[in-house]
Amino acid sequence: MSSCYGKNIKISIFGQSHSAAIGVVIDGLPAGHAVDMEKLEAFMLRRAPGTNEFSTSRHESDKVEVLSGLKNGLLCGAPFAAIIRNTDVRSDDYAEIVDTPRPGHADFTAQIKFGGYQDASGGGHFSGRMTAPLCIAGGIIMQLLAKENIMIGAHIAEIAGIKDSNFDPVTISSADLAALYKCSFAANDTSAGDAMKKAIADALSVGDSVGGIIECAAIGLPAGVGDHMFDGMENRIALAVFAIPAVKGIEFGSGFSGSKLCGSENNDAFTFSSSTVKTVTNNHGGILGGITSGMPLLFRVAIKPTPSIAQKQHTISFSQECDTILKIKGRHDPCIVPRAVPCVESAAAIAIYDALLDFKKYR
Amino acid sequence: MSSCYGKNIKISIFGQSHSAAIGVVIDGLPAGHAVDMEKLEAFMLRRAPGTNEFSTSRHESDKVEVLSGLKNGLLCGAPFAAIIRNTDVRSDDYAEIVDTPRPGHADFTAQIKFGGYQDASGGGHFSGRMTAPLCIAGGIIMQLLAKENIMIGAHIAEIAGIKDSNFDPVTISSADLAALYKCSFAANDTSAGDAMKKAIADALSVGDSVGGIIECAAIGLPAGVGDHMFDGMENRIALAVFAIPAVKGIEFGSGFSGSKLCGSENNDAFTFSSSTVKTVTNNHGGILGGITSGMPLLFRVAIKPTPSIAQKQHTISFSQECDTILKIKGRHDPCIVPRAVPCVESAAAIAIYDALLDFKKYR
Amino acid sequence: MSSCYGKNIKISIFGQSHSAAIGVVIDGLPAGHAVDMEKLEAFMLRRAPGTNEFSTSRHESDKVEVLSGLKNGLLCGAPFAAIIRNTDVRSDDYAEIVDTPRPGHADFTAQIKFGGYQDASGGGHFSGRMTAPLCIAGGIIMQLLAKENIMIGAHIAEIAGIKDSNFDPVTISSADLAALYKCSFAANDTSAGDAMKKAIADALSVGDSVGGIIECAAIGLPAGVGDHMFDGMENRIALAVFAIPAVKGIEFGSGFSGSKLCGSENNDAFTFSSSTVKTVTNNHGGILGGITSGMPLLFRVAIKPTPSIAQKQHTISFSQECDTILKIKGRHDPCIVPRAVPCVESAAAIAIYDALLDFKKYR
Amino acid sequence: MSSCYGKNIKISIFGQSHSAAIGVVIDGLPAGHAVDMEKLEAFMLRRAPGTNEFSTSRHESDKVEVLSGLKNGLLCGAPFAAIIRNTDVRSDDYAEIVDTPRPGHADFTAQIKFGGYQDASGGGHFSGRMTAPLCIAGGIIMQLLAKENIMIGAHIAEIAGIKDSNFDPVTISSADLAALYKCSFAANDTSAGDAMKKAIADALSVGDSVGGIIECAAIGLPAGVGDHMFDGMENRIALAVFAIPAVKGIEFGSGFSGSKLCGSENNDAFTFSSSTVKTVTNNHGGILGGITSGMPLLFRVAIKPTPSIAQKQHTISFSQECDTILKIKGRHDPCIVPRAVPCVESAAAIAIYDALLDFKKYR
Repeated sequence: MSSCYGKNIKISIFGQSHSAAIGVVIDGLPAGHAVDMEKLEAFMLRRAPGTNEFSTSRHESDKVEVLSGLKNGLLCGAPFAAIIRNTDVRSDDYAEIVDTPRPGHADFTAQIKFGGYQDASGGGHFSGRMTAPLCIAGGIIMQLLAKENIMIGAHIAEIAGIKDSNFDPVTISSADLAALYKCSFAANDTSAGDAMKKAIADALSVGDSVGGIIECAAIGLPAGVGDHMFDGMENRIALAVFAIPAVKGIEFGSGFSGSKLCGSENNDAFTFSSSTVKTVTNNHGGILGGITSGMPLLFRVAIKPTPSIAQKQHTISFSQECDTILKIKGRHDPCIVPRAVPCVESAAAIAIYDALLDFKKYR
Repeated sequence: MSSCYGKNIKISIFGQSHSAAIGVVIDGLPAGHAVDMEKLEAFMLRRAPGTNEFSTSRHESDKVEVLSGLKNGLLCGAPFAAIIRNTDVRSDDYAEIVDTPRPGHADFTAQIKFGGYQDASGGGHFSGRMTAPLCIAGGIIMQLLAKENIMIGAHIAEIAGIKDSNFDPVTISSADLAALYKCSFAANDTSAGDAMKKAIADALSVGDSVGGIIECAAIGLPAGVGDHMFDGMENRIALAVFAIPAVKGIEFGSGFSGSKLCGSENNDAFTFSSSTVKTVTNNHGGILGGITSGMPLLFRVAIKPTPSIAQKQHTISFSQECDTILKIKGRHDPCIVPRAVPCVESAAAIAIYDALLDFKKYR
Repeated sequence: MSSCYGKNIKISIFGQSHSAAIGVVIDGLPAGHAVDMEKLEAFMLRRAPGTNEFSTSRHESDKVEVLSGLKNGLLCGAPFAAIIRNTDVRSDDYAEIVDTPRPGHADFTAQIKFGGYQDASGGGHFSGRMTAPLCIAGGIIMQLLAKENIMIGAHIAEIAGIKDSNFDPVTISSADLAALYKCSFAANDTSAGDAMKKAIADALSVGDSVGGIIECAAIGLPAGVGDHMFDGMENRIALAVFAIPAVKGIEFGSGFSGSKLCGSENNDAFTFSSSTVKTVTNNHGGILGGITSGMPLLFRVAIKPTPSIAQKQHTISFSQECDTILKIKGRHDPCIVPRAVPCVESAAAIAIYDALLDFKKYR
Repeated sequence: MSSCYGKNIKISIFGQSHSAAIGVVIDGLPAGHAVDMEKLEAFMLRRAPGTNEFSTSRHESDKVEVLSGLKNGLLCGAPFAAIIRNTDVRSDDYAEIVDTPRPGHADFTAQIKFGGYQDASGGGHFSGRMTAPLCIAGGIIMQLLAKENIMIGAHIAEIAGIKDSNFDPVTISSADLAALYKCSFAANDTSAGDAMKKAIADALSVGDSVGGIIECAAIGLPAGVGDHMFDGMENRIALAVFAIPAVKGIEFGSGFSGSKLCGSENNDAFTFSSSTVKTVTNNHGGILGGITSGMPLLFRVAIKPTPSIAQKQHTISFSQECDTILKIKGRHDPCIVPRAVPCVESAAAIAIYDALLDFKKYR
């Protein structure tokens, strides 16, 4: 584990915000499939900064350089490895961090864990930038899933308490998800999206930040994927999704609100529909006993407000062993939720694909 | 994984609701520590049925029989194994399940996954009964954690929408947790507990069930425990907690409600307190960058209403390939939240202890 | 790992020589297959003591009690768990061990590792008795492999330097292996077997012991099983086989003797045979690049002479911190090679089946 | 697993012989230690081609480029990643391989496993070149082990049947190993080395190749490292060593020859020596019950003769489905044993360090 994920596929993510490069190794991908690099770049763009007015002005090209794993553009069975060079690196911005940890960041805990030897620049290995290699893996795996008619997509369900219309848990379609892929701001409801953007702009104007919720769906999954207890779909997806910095909660199907319902309300009746067993409602989020039911798999992820804010904050000085005031320099995303959308899709894709390989071995 | 958990400790849970026995193997426990069997039995009792008026009338003695791993009452370094015999087994109650899957249960997905060969009696390996071996592991590990002054405890934060008073995220103490251990109904606020009990009774009276939320705290953890990305404390705990049937969501610290706050509200200021670095508030739930901060580790778990209800429900018949009506026989807990409290503590204990061993290897 | 093995199947072995029971949990077996308990008992008998004149007189019934994982005699998808009760336990024989470690045993290293808390009786978890649960797992998995026409068998290739005739690496057949299953002393050549038995008897008569070599074959494996680098068939099999106490070496195909050959001698020419690609010779032991070639998979295992001998031996006394003389009491196998034959088969079966599941997930 | 190794450290190796780069990610290294890049380069040079008269003329610079994991030259806790660019790549030499698999190589099995999509150039991921990233990992870890006074070294014990003098299993010293590090041809006995070189030259002159045996020692290991059954030192080391292409056997201590001894000969008497418990002899190779005894850890590895030879060989043509003759073009090492010495050391270092971290967590 650590920066490694998977049982059938093995994903190993490396890099620091300001190291020479960041990257990923993916072992266990099946040979013979084409990797559409253009499609991958388009996917990466959804995570890239600078694509909307609120994202950090740091210029990250996020150009993916493949080191191994392909032969004539096809996966060749050897581990796939790719890197992104870190070019626009200004370490000076982070000189203070080692001494005065930023509230809400991993600066303090990394200092304790690594005894001061951590690379604090830009958050080091804890930087949101580490989600770029996650997206390389996710983007490729989404291409593999597409060949099995499995599609994963997410939208911004909420920012600063402003709600988008949710996915219909029963009828959500590939067209719905495809439409979101094309949005620069992935909301189902444009007016809700506009209100969210305004909330982000308002936060920015006062040197503050906002958080939100992402709802993610996987459709086309066969019933029967996932394993008992610790290897259920919820476990697998949660394990992957919490690797995204700023994620502080996850719920499947009706989740926390379902915990307020009666059994007679929350249970989903089974019914035959075109000789397939479906459920009439989908409070179970497509997972029963950790195993997919064939209904859309649905989960929601809570993302905390960006901890980097322009306002003065109370913190401590390690060297002087006293409380002090910190004012973070540089520009930062006032809301990372929009850019986290493909990251959540990636984490889900990785978890689902790994489970799918387990499913296949008993076919 | 599957029914196995852990990297340093390896927990393997086995059994079906109606197999000869259920049990657990725990590999990797340190030698030389006493296992207090009385304390373990007391812990198991908190999960056991029949201890309050609403729990299932099935008489499970939950008598723990140790097979290996002890020498003169002390852990000896060999894998610890223990079983509980299944004695009060009435398979007849479940004869219908294979053909007419119960809504909200794993009957349907298990049927698909295992091709009809699953042991459907009592839910088989998907039964809530499988949390008994989880609690054997959790109970023993909580004894080991106590030797390092780490204490884990949980309370019923909500049932049927009725809320208990939450833990104070900064000042929660071992006394608070110890008091809860002794409650037959683990609520901080007795009157809230009474209202919850009434809600359960009301649901039962109409053949329905209710769900709820459990809040769990771990105190005494040193700062620096947990690893980057996929091995963060959130990942580890979520991976363990979703093994408990009926769990559909988890959030750490301010979680979903924190996603509605501004950064300036959600960030926790650092401060020196008796020459130790603390945070003034604890929205981060004791975890930053996946690593413990030394503040109380706090998370909340959403538990769905018991899917087994006495009311008629719509489902399908596999054999007749048509929709049908199911009326579940037997008595079932109208609310499993109270009995899930030690299960959540156990899952947390296992995850935390495994992380703690990782922490120790670099000391 | 530790006492756990496997990626697709998860085997967890527990118990001490003198604990209440020893046993195994096997997670990940496919549902729907019958477990032939009679066949399993017959397989266990090949490992059991007392079946030939030289084996230890301790009376181990090795009666397998299934705790879970079956429904109506078929694997049901839930983890399979089975135990063997330890009945004939005389701990007094081992009272000295903790203070005066037996040469060639794990007494000393266990003492250091577990700080004196290990269960020294009968060797505890390091006892050869722990191969009984290994054989439960192996015996069941060999039944599953048989359904795919994969057969594993071994013979005593050498004892005390006396050599049996080896398997023909190209033509070895299921009939050859089946014949060995029925032998009370698994030698291809009866006269060699008789000479070995005499060597064992001679060693016994002077209070000494002898070791030997086991050759194991797996036939019927499709080409393409096994993975690169650390997951090659050699890695997987070696990982499993070294779990058997007393194993000190393993070689595949021409192995150590092949290292003395020229490339032109050791290389195996490919040829078409009945439209299948075969090799003319089989110095590669059925494995190239860690992947099966479709030729018989062949390996040899070095087993050291039983460390428990009746002669006086030099050792130390922990308590008195001085050198001393030890005379081991009780009767012990003067040669464990014959009983190790099904253990080697079991280790191979487990490793091969786990690899086969990996193979299947990409079909 | 696959191209990943380790439990506490996670090593992920990627690349093909002719991909853009080959490399390694190492997760789990402790923060704060300096990586001496010059020392690493010197270590890599021992594996590099062209350093003696017999090695392949392909010009591989093996220049290590660090991508992440360091901060100011010190390990920073983030995964360490490094690559070596593949520069001197002439794919034309390998055009035939896909159709006419080379005997003794993984060409055939890779073809079957990957359905023809493998990168056959230069052996792809199965190339001996993949041992370069293994040595990056090994070289760094040997630096970490040195800080704990653990030293690993190996010599060419045998080539073409010509034997070097073996390590003294009891008295082998750091000076012995240090001397070998400096040899261009790692033999203890120069005259034996000269005879081996002549045998290699002779093989080369007739278009043939030779194999051999490497003996490896680890000294300075504390007693008590290693775990039971599947996590013993033998299992761990074998798992790592078989990742080196051409390795076909491994034996620990007296190994295969020990299997011919009596117990009274093979058992190693314990004795107090300067108030430490030692063994008088070391047939156990420093490992008892999978756990280190504190004596030198010793093992021997069988390396097959280089399968690439200049002589004509019989093989098949996939496309024409008939037998054919292959003459491999290009120059190849007539003996890879000398270059495999640091690879074996690396595999041992990785396995031992991973075990050492397990050992530390219970201190």
